[in-house]
Amino acid sequence: MGSDEGYTLGELVDRLGGDLSLPASSSKRVYRFTAIEMAGPQDLCFVSSPRYRSKLTDCKAAAVILRAGDTAHAPTDLTTIVVADPYVWYARAAMLFCPQPKSEGGIHPQAVVAPDAVIAAGVTIEAGAVIGPRARLGQGVWIGSGCVVDEDVVIGEESRLYPRVTIYPGCLIGSRVIIHAGVVIGSDGFGFARDGNVWIKIPQTGRVRIGDDCEIGANTTIDRGALEDTVIGAGCKLDNQIQVAHNVRIGEGCAIAACVGIAGSAVIGNHCQIGGGAGILGHLEIADHTIISAMSLVTRSITKPGFYTGVFPLMPNRDWEYAAAGLRRQVRLRAQSRLTLGASPSSDSGRGADSDHEATRYER
Amino acid sequence: MGSDEGYTLGELVDRLGGDLSLPASSSKRVYRFTAIEMAGPQDLCFVSSPRYRSKLTDCKAAAVILRAGDTAHAPTDLTTIVVADPYVWYARAAMLFCPQPKSEGGIHPQAVVAPDAVIAAGVTIEAGAVIGPRARLGQGVWIGSGCVVDEDVVIGEESRLYPRVTIYPGCLIGSRVIIHAGVVIGSDGFGFARDGNVWIKIPQTGRVRIGDDCEIGANTTIDRGALEDTVIGAGCKLDNQIQVAHNVRIGEGCAIAACVGIAGSAVIGNHCQIGGGAGILGHLEIADHTIISAMSLVTRSITKPGFYTGVFPLMPNRDWEYAAAGLRRQVRLRAQSRLTLGASPSSDSGRGADSDHEATRYER
Amino acid sequence: MGSDEGYTLGELVDRLGGDLSLPASSSKRVYRFTAIEMAGPQDLCFVSSPRYRSKLTDCKAAAVILRAGDTAHAPTDLTTIVVADPYVWYARAAMLFCPQPKSEGGIHPQAVVAPDAVIAAGVTIEAGAVIGPRARLGQGVWIGSGCVVDEDVVIGEESRLYPRVTIYPGCLIGSRVIIHAGVVIGSDGFGFARDGNVWIKIPQTGRVRIGDDCEIGANTTIDRGALEDTVIGAGCKLDNQIQVAHNVRIGEGCAIAACVGIAGSAVIGNHCQIGGGAGILGHLEIADHTIISAMSLVTRSITKPGFYTGVFPLMPNRDWEYAAAGLRRQVRLRAQSRLTLGASPSSDSGRGADSDHEATRYER
Repeated sequence: MGSDEGYTLGELVDRLGGDLSLPASSSKRVYRFTAIEMAGPQDLCFVSSPRYRSKLTDCKAAAVILRAGDTAHAPTDLTTIVVADPYVWYARAAMLFCPQPKSEGGIHPQAVVAPDAVIAAGVTIEAGAVIGPRARLGQGVWIGSGCVVDEDVVIGEESRLYPRVTIYPGCLIGSRVIIHAGVVIGSDGFGFARDGNVWIKIPQTGRVRIGDDCEIGANTTIDRGALEDTVIGAGCKLDNQIQVAHNVRIGEGCAIAACVGIAGSAVIGNHCQIGGGAGILGHLEIADHTIISAMSLVTRSITKPGFYTGVFPLMPNRDWEYAAAGLRRQVRLRAQSRLTLGASPSSDSGRGADSDHEATRYER
Repeated sequence: MGSDEGYTLGELVDRLGGDLSLPASSSKRVYRFTAIEMAGPQDLCFVSSPRYRSKLTDCKAAAVILRAGDTAHAPTDLTTIVVADPYVWYARAAMLFCPQPKSEGGIHPQAVVAPDAVIAAGVTIEAGAVIGPRARLGQGVWIGSGCVVDEDVVIGEESRLYPRVTIYPGCLIGSRVIIHAGVVIGSDGFGFARDGNVWIKIPQTGRVRIGDDCEIGANTTIDRGALEDTVIGAGCKLDNQIQVAHNVRIGEGCAIAACVGIAGSAVIGNHCQIGGGAGILGHLEIADHTIISAMSLVTRSITKPGFYTGVFPLMPNRDWEYAAAGLRRQVRLRAQSRLTLGASPSSDSGRGADSDHEATRYER
Repeated sequence: MGSDEGYTLGELVDRLGGDLSLPASSSKRVYRFTAIEMAGPQDLCFVSSPRYRSKLTDCKAAAVILRAGDTAHAPTDLTTIVVADPYVWYARAAMLFCPQPKSEGGIHPQAVVAPDAVIAAGVTIEAGAVIGPRARLGQGVWIGSGCVVDEDVVIGEESRLYPRVTIYPGCLIGSRVIIHAGVVIGSDGFGFARDGNVWIKIPQTGRVRIGDDCEIGANTTIDRGALEDTVIGAGCKLDNQIQVAHNVRIGEGCAIAACVGIAGSAVIGNHCQIGGGAGILGHLEIADHTIISAMSLVTRSITKPGFYTGVFPLMPNRDWEYAAAGLRRQVRLRAQSRLTLGASPSSDSGRGADSDHEATRYER
């Protein structure tokens, strides 16, 4: 039973659970998921958000996966499969239809592998990849074209590097990790000591350690630690173009959307979710299960899990000009009363004295 | 008539239009454009912004391209060419002086080309590039060093990939497309279903389709769709380090500045302009001809074209501490009245109930 | 005397200065720096921030580097070395323990070097690198695997390119410059003239010039100038994923944290510090020694050095909904009074008339 032959609805319900509304549909054979408006009689689709409910009326799919609460919106002659979480069911079923390709094994003649690298069985190394001295690649690892895996790097079994990934010396990658094209792991952290007008480089002697079952998106960068390691916990999913600075420690099972920047030595708990383009300043801690909105900046530690936001609301530009002017006027008024009353902002503000330190150190 | 020999002013006016102020200058020969303050007697320059008007006084160029309204600022003995849009005239003339290099054809012996790839006439493939099975490269395509064009990718004629571009399997690139170094096209979208504390990967089975005449800046990433394709319309210009998530659809002729992040399933109209570092949340729509300011976040659909902004105004840090404290105090005061009056923010706020869903799904 | 044999405390004080609290410790031999809580009897550590003072009590290091003001927090039997700036001392000492590796010289047989490239003595070129026609590499230059150094590029002595760096034709790199993996230097600036609904490409004929002793972080992009060069001054340190647009000029000794975007033709003074994720609009100037906070947007020139901030303070999302609603209400109220009184925001707002121009030109 494979993807090309498809699955009957009965087979899928047997494997993944769910209640089939029309038992006679059990033998219908389906071959793929599609968007609900494009689905034909051999396709599956799903409704996990109320916004797609209205499309049930005209749905031509073999069956729709949905929650019990949405069945009232489905025509009675439409086959439905009621499940607890349609999106999770879809994810599991989609993986049956489209299993991730496995390493077939084999080293391309135009790959360059150091003689003392340790290559397990079933490893694929594509054209132009370079594997450095003493690197160790576990069983079934797949290294894409043009990757550079430098000396002493260790990669756990079944991990896959898409083309043009660079891993600096000594970094440790877990098992079943997926790393997309253009990722850089283990580059020097941004560490300089200021001596007058000169920045003195601080050797970055830590490594990067990435736990099992992580996925790292395209062109993301993760710097090596200065003294200690930079650590990404097991099961973390990082999107594209994320920057993780030196000594950062991220807990398990976090989901971090694209373009997030995490400054040096930040400690992020388990199962956090960080929206795209958000920023996290250095040397602070974020509690487990915290959720940060897109493009919000975390300026001090978050000790209480919750859903946090800090973005200026979008407005027509002319309105924004007024809003900005209003903020500036308030500041002038407060500054006047400050001169009169000697009030201090520090107990109330978003940054303490430390932020000054951060802003000038730039160890990010 | 070519770049090395330059052009006479008369030749340029014949080709591109414009009124030459001193007809005797028609035979002057010019060889390049320069900045106005650096121009010598064989150079052209242009004034398209009022801020450069004052530099006309000392200008030593062979001729200055400007609008009729700016001629009063030019000395009478300075040759001018009056045109409707100096910047457009400059663009067209500069391309005469500096035509983009064309593919000379030829496959480097250290490139790796699959036997069943289809390579048209005049294609250049540089050293270290890898072309996968069944890929099809149109006439005059130019593939830079170290590029990876994976299986079943199709690239239209005269398109150019600078070095180290990666294109994942099955993506479709139009004709005359320019893709700069480090770009990744077709990496997996960030799609995971949450099952308790575990993120389950959703296979990303769509493709990326890029229309004709697009340009994609260095290190930009464009993810493949989950079920449907991610689509960039014809004539779009994307700057460096942009992130386009899965299922995004961008209309024709958009200009998107560097570091913009566009979350999953966002639909952007035709001829939009998006400022650098702006963010666009997922599952929303933006009307044709909308302009978004730099570093502003679009949190819901924009149905009315216009110029939108949402950034906190820059202030001396001490003032900002007061402004931030003021905002927090207002929130506390409103929260108190909320408890008293039971008022709801939802009719007025920048995010509806859906944003909660977005923030927790992280399908960006 | 090298890293493997370590150094005695006496040797270090002789070389780098400082007052050893217990002269008998002068012969103690140390081998590395570690974090204060991990230090053992052969390790050094340092305290440069008050937040780590409390860890002195249980410190087991051979010696701690600290300021005179912190000695009162150290147990009397703990060896200390009192210095003016512990972080600078640490930087200098750490470089003794971990000297940066030097180019060993040699061209890998799978590198591709143009016959007319000029390669000085002691140059290393790793596997898969491509060196174009007439490129010149100074003494001791080290080119990592998969780098592309295009025609006419000049790289000064002792500079190092980590793997997969791309340098477009004609760019000039100083001496002792470090460039991390995935960096792109000299890609076309984002220059298009709008002619109706069509964007006309403007040839980017300038170069990039990078001064001596710069460091450029992973996946950063620096575009070539349109007419003039893009210039990075000597001694600048740029973190990862920074975008520098065309014609930007950055002075000497600036430190720029990750994910910063600098728009076209911005001029940044000497010794500025720019926090992570900040943005700088185009065609403006920033005074020497200016400090910009993380994720703040500079919308007009800064003529007075100082510490500037502009970020919306982070709040619980429900509070933010109220704050956003409050801002919108203020705008409506002001808009009403504007209609009544004809007040203009322009004297007070964050952007002048020019910003309109910027937002629509998108020459970033």
